[in-house]
Amino acid sequence: MTLLEQLDRQHFFHPGTHAYDHATGTLPGFIIGEGRGIHLTDVAGREYIDGFSGLYCVNVGYGRDEIAERMAAQCKRLSYYHTYVGSANEPVIELSRRLIEDWAPPGMVKVFYGMSGSDANETQIKLVWYYNNILGRKNKKKIIARDRAYHGSGIVTGALTGLPAYHANFDSPFDRVVRAMCPDYYRNAVPGSSEADFTAHCVAELESLIEREGADTIAAFIAEPMNGTGGIVPPPEGYWPAVQALLRRHDILLIADEVVCGFGRLGARTGCERFGIAPDLLTFAKGLTSAYAPLSAVVVGEAFWDVLMSGSREHGVMGHGWTYSGHPLGAIAGLANLDIMERERLVDNADDVGGYLLERLRAAFGAHRLVGDIRGVGMLMAIQLMQDPATRTPFPPERRINAGVVAAAREHGLLIRALGADIVGFAPPLITTREQADDIVARVQAAFDDALSG
Amino acid sequence: MTLLEQLDRQHFFHPGTHAYDHATGTLPGFIIGEGRGIHLTDVAGREYIDGFSGLYCVNVGYGRDEIAERMAAQCKRLSYYHTYVGSANEPVIELSRRLIEDWAPPGMVKVFYGMSGSDANETQIKLVWYYNNILGRKNKKKIIARDRAYHGSGIVTGALTGLPAYHANFDSPFDRVVRAMCPDYYRNAVPGSSEADFTAHCVAELESLIEREGADTIAAFIAEPMNGTGGIVPPPEGYWPAVQALLRRHDILLIADEVVCGFGRLGARTGCERFGIAPDLLTFAKGLTSAYAPLSAVVVGEAFWDVLMSGSREHGVMGHGWTYSGHPLGAIAGLANLDIMERERLVDNADDVGGYLLERLRAAFGAHRLVGDIRGVGMLMAIQLMQDPATRTPFPPERRINAGVVAAAREHGLLIRALGADIVGFAPPLITTREQADDIVARVQAAFDDALSG
Ligand SMILES: Cc1ncc(COP(=O)(O)O)c(C=O)c1O
Ligand SMILES: Cc1ncc(COP(=O)(O)O)c(C=O)c1O
Repeated sequence: MTLLEQLDRQHFFHPGTHAYDHATGTLPGFIIGEGRGIHLTDVAGREYIDGFSGLYCVNVGYGRDEIAERMAAQCKRLSYYHTYVGSANEPVIELSRRLIEDWAPPGMVKVFYGMSGSDANETQIKLVWYYNNILGRKNKKKIIARDRAYHGSGIVTGALTGLPAYHANFDSPFDRVVRAMCPDYYRNAVPGSSEADFTAHCVAELESLIEREGADTIAAFIAEPMNGTGGIVPPPEGYWPAVQALLRRHDILLIADEVVCGFGRLGARTGCERFGIAPDLLTFAKGLTSAYAPLSAVVVGEAFWDVLMSGSREHGVMGHGWTYSGHPLGAIAGLANLDIMERERLVDNADDVGGYLLERLRAAFGAHRLVGDIRGVGMLMAIQLMQDPATRTPFPPERRINAGVVAAAREHGLLIRALGADIVGFAPPLITTREQADDIVARVQAAFDDALSG
Repeated sequence: MTLLEQLDRQHFFHPGTHAYDHATGTLPGFIIGEGRGIHLTDVAGREYIDGFSGLYCVNVGYGRDEIAERMAAQCKRLSYYHTYVGSANEPVIELSRRLIEDWAPPGMVKVFYGMSGSDANETQIKLVWYYNNILGRKNKKKIIARDRAYHGSGIVTGALTGLPAYHANFDSPFDRVVRAMCPDYYRNAVPGSSEADFTAHCVAELESLIEREGADTIAAFIAEPMNGTGGIVPPPEGYWPAVQALLRRHDILLIADEVVCGFGRLGARTGCERFGIAPDLLTFAKGLTSAYAPLSAVVVGEAFWDVLMSGSREHGVMGHGWTYSGHPLGAIAGLANLDIMERERLVDNADDVGGYLLERLRAAFGAHRLVGDIRGVGMLMAIQLMQDPATRTPFPPERRINAGVVAAAREHGLLIRALGADIVGFAPPLITTREQADDIVARVQAAFDDALSG
């Protein structure tokens, strides 16, 4: 073990990492030294294609010198000033304008900044409760979140997250969170039913949930336009228009969590654009800066903002904010990132190359004896492994069949991600070319051969 | 109103800002364009001394080109990679070592990273609950926080915060938070009692709180070594040793929130060092990077870590983390910042110039007819205004007497901060010289003359 690895295990408390296995060295170390384009190199000199863009966040790829240079120039000029009590800086004003005018769906008017998807979703919940308190609706506070959602890892955002690993031993879920089903057509639809039937089923389930709880107790519905960490599950046909109509009927706010979907990942500017959603509130993070600096955004629609604003006349300053809200470094990284996205037309490239990659994966593995489903939208896709696709019999979860594929892919120089126990996820940088997509498919082939043969 | 100001008011949702007054222009705009050393310049070209280091975070001052350059170099090399499942990068490993070996109090072994003081305190709470679940102490979950504390603005960290503005309309405080008194000798001691008497009173109050609630229901006590945002209140003599002994007797963990105090602010490496505290867990942020990049740290003591680690053998991976945990940009900013702190001996300078500034403020305003108390430690101090210091009669809070002083100081080119309704806070960068301290005092004099005469 190198000295660097020793120090890592000695002092660095990693997120989402098995503490004992890491400390003892059972879990292999993986220290990344360099990144350029879609490639990463570890400190031992091995090169990888990053088929998951970090954690689906490095949309414009690594090593964009122009972002580094603009961050450095901003840092020399103004490294920081807070934005409380009406203070501001130039990059954050410009970024707010750009987001509202060019990137957010119509009807959004204001942008609040944080540093993570989790803190932005936390802000959403605070805003929604505040809003209903201002309106005198003291009981309208529950939030509906979906099974297999990922909305963060805070105490309350972790409760919104619909994955058991984020609840165990943290005394989650929180009593104001209500759970709706995950609209996973492949896994949850009655065999033989159409997508439209399944959508009707999902909407009926949501409606009966709302009726059971009482619409006057439910403040908001939060969802990823397309489920990410829960397994990369595109919504079934017609899902969003029907859900949105239902929510409107019950005066339930819609919070679109665009942390993964936003900024081209789905081959559109946002998931909302892709699926025809008109949210009341929207969360951005990840692709907002392509991870060059920590930045998240809470984007607020006009009707909602009007309530907050008139509320301030009676209730004064809303006690909410972070020291680094509106940090100029994050804002300039966001601006530089958007410049690249626009100049290189990466939304279109994601749509084009993402569609191509999905087609190639289907051609290569669609008939594989252990593959049940290959699905995706834009540059976000997944292969669903099944012990017996014909009877839809899954592998026993403790087998973690996908972990072997992901480990084998790493040996072949491709980083992809295991989701759940049997899903293999792909989310390459949006700059990926068709040639590189072919290279990815070839490496997946090698990984399948190693991990799934015999 | 300039176009920039218009855009600001149109699209940027500021933290801690009166929404209506800002949108309508009643609240003056304040757009900062440049910063160097202890100086800031707004976009209209007016220069200010920043007597509060942003939000007591820019410890090494603005415009440190070497931090900008090291961030740019790191960004070109490796702009990001996640640190889940044992992944790491070089700067985060090196920063972890530096923090444990050189900056944290003895006995701390591991560092988990976030981006804000709030998220780090949120992690603390999650860890403490997890820890007690691992140990099978399912009821030992309450957290004691002090009146007038500031621990963040999240849903639960905002409940730890002991300031009403952070609770109103957010459905805080949370039922697992228990409130202890603020050890403010000037405001809370019975007239004529000694500091030692007052300490005994605070400890007795804490003890009866623990007995009332039951020690077996209390997981932790969280506190700033020296209160900051609640009014800059140094602990009375003997407070910390007595509190710590009491907590140990009841098996209650001590979380030191060093977000403000850490990295030289109090003329010592940490508040713990300054006051002889040996915490179980410690939170860093702000001065960790001098705000050059968003970064916070949860520093974990050895005994606590051993429980987490053995817990993982039974319970597996702990479901906690942020996409940007251990971000290489924050880590390199932290390293560059610590290099400057050490090379320029800024801890010593804070002690020296801070002491000098406190003495000059006392000389200038100690006998002022509206000044009750002038207090501080290191480079963190406050003037407590009083309508009648002799009888300790405060101004009516709605008068916000301190706001006028702070506004007048801004007119004289000095940024300081109004805390509560009658406290004026000072926290200049740690690079401030004695000459600059004299300049600060002269500007405060001018502000007092403008705001408090007649
Ligand atoms: C949809 C979604 N929302 C929120 C988050 C939380 O973001 P962060 O890890 O930055 O807190 C994530 C992270 O993966 C996410 O995928
Ligand atoms: C002592 C203390 N803890 C925590 C925080 C929260 O930090 P942040 O604003 O980075 O979330 C602050 C912020 O001022 C603080 O002063």
